[in-house]
Amino acid sequence: MRDKLYVIKIGGNIIDDEKKLAFFLKGFASINGKKILIHGGGKLATKFAAQLGVEQQLIDGRRITDAETLKIVTMVYAGYINKNIVAQLQSHNCNAIGLCGADGNLIQSHKRQHPTIDYGFVGDIDSVNTTLLKNLLEQNINVVIAPITHNKEGLLLNTNADTIAQEIAQAMSEFYEVNLIYSFEKAGVLMNAEDDSTVITSITQSSYKDLKEQKIIHSGMIPKLDNAFAALNKGVNRIIVGKAEQLQDLISGNAGTSIVKGSKN
Amino acid sequence: MRDKLYVIKIGGNIIDDEKKLAFFLKGFASINGKKILIHGGGKLATKFAAQLGVEQQLIDGRRITDAETLKIVTMVYAGYINKNIVAQLQSHNCNAIGLCGADGNLIQSHKRQHPTIDYGFVGDIDSVNTTLLKNLLEQNINVVIAPITHNKEGLLLNTNADTIAQEIAQAMSEFYEVNLIYSFEKAGVLMNAEDDSTVITSITQSSYKDLKEQKIIHSGMIPKLDNAFAALNKGVNRIIVGKAEQLQDLISGNAGTSIVKGSKN
Repeated sequence: MRDKLYVIKIGGNIIDDEKKLAFFLKGFASINGKKILIHGGGKLATKFAAQLGVEQQLIDGRRITDAETLKIVTMVYAGYINKNIVAQLQSHNCNAIGLCGADGNLIQSHKRQHPTIDYGFVGDIDSVNTTLLKNLLEQNINVVIAPITHNKEGLLLNTNADTIAQEIAQAMSEFYEVNLIYSFEKAGVLMNAEDDSTVITSITQSSYKDLKEQKIIHSGMIPKLDNAFAALNKGVNRIIVGKAEQLQDLISGNAGTSIVKGSKN
Repeated sequence: MRDKLYVIKIGGNIIDDEKKLAFFLKGFASINGKKILIHGGGKLATKFAAQLGVEQQLIDGRRITDAETLKIVTMVYAGYINKNIVAQLQSHNCNAIGLCGADGNLIQSHKRQHPTIDYGFVGDIDSVNTTLLKNLLEQNINVVIAPITHNKEGLLLNTNADTIAQEIAQAMSEFYEVNLIYSFEKAGVLMNAEDDSTVITSITQSSYKDLKEQKIIHSGMIPKLDNAFAALNKGVNRIIVGKAEQLQDLISGNAGTSIVKGSKN
């Protein structure tokens, strides 16, 4: 029997809402067992950039990170948000350590190469330092990760938090039974995107095929679910998608969408 | 024979100078053995606050930290500066982890109580988590500390970096032979404050008494040296004060002022 590890990604809209975040962190602190939290930055970085007069660009929902923007996201993600999350967890007697990818060489990446778009200081992940994570977790220290990585040549790089969660979940599956949880504002994968009561409780590889053919799952959800099944194929035990406010129920299997390999729950 | 540990405080004016900082970090990376780096924020936080239109107040050289200033120093110290230092050290193959006092409950503090001055969100240190530091150092992970602590009730607090260096040096003396180095823009404790060639090579408790009587050491230097001797009395092996550019020589004893208990070097 391997120990369970929860790798939890928290969505930007929760970060933006002080009360929701506090409620979420209380729930996170009360989870029994080892856990890793990956957070993005929500609108705080954008708001902050506007205050400083730094213009933001997005392509396909990804921020184009120029030098000034990199400075801002490093401050907001790895500084303000990360440290406030850690301080709140400590107040709930949940020992936590806040890291970015440069710390302890946690996540090494390279600057994204793209034939037509210059994403700027954006990193694609090369490796995860599982030894460091395992050592911290075995000391009952929970890990809070800001989505900034480094290239081992002195450069910090802005990196997609969903991808970080997936890569960490995959890598840590070598040691733990990993449950990867994407918590955000929606109740899960929905039959009707506008109706939170239409949650699809469980998706398997074969039901996914059907849902795509019926066009119930389409556009933006397809790459996300493709990634989820890729993670399952790389050893992750289960992926759960659902509302951040229902964290406990997501973990116990009483809420959200559970994405699993086979037909069994 | 106990292992040596270097606890090194780097002054704000080095942080402000990209080239000097890079040179210093290269030197730091090349130090053989366990080391902890404590950095302040220099003028970056002040500059940044000005950009955002947040007014700064200083009393006795200490920043009055209102809520907006706390946010800024958390971003600048624990985010921008801390992560850039770590990324640079990684590029020199010096494994390092960047922490603030909330991380792993590293430094617990309480909001400063003062009869007449409200310092705002400023923390005075209660405890240092030596177990965490020891565990990281034993894995050959060097620790880079931003001067933000927490009160274990969810509040981050701005804390004097010199004091953090002293408290950590004292606490870690339980396990290591600790050399505490204050590196800054001057060559050491000087006979003539304006002349870097007048470094006092060594100060002992008895020579300190003489230097005070002769008014060679006066005003601002007195509390600093009182703190240094207090640290020696709490187990720190040696305190060295000198130029950040001469880090190697400070460590080998070929530069700076060495502050030691007895008359021997």
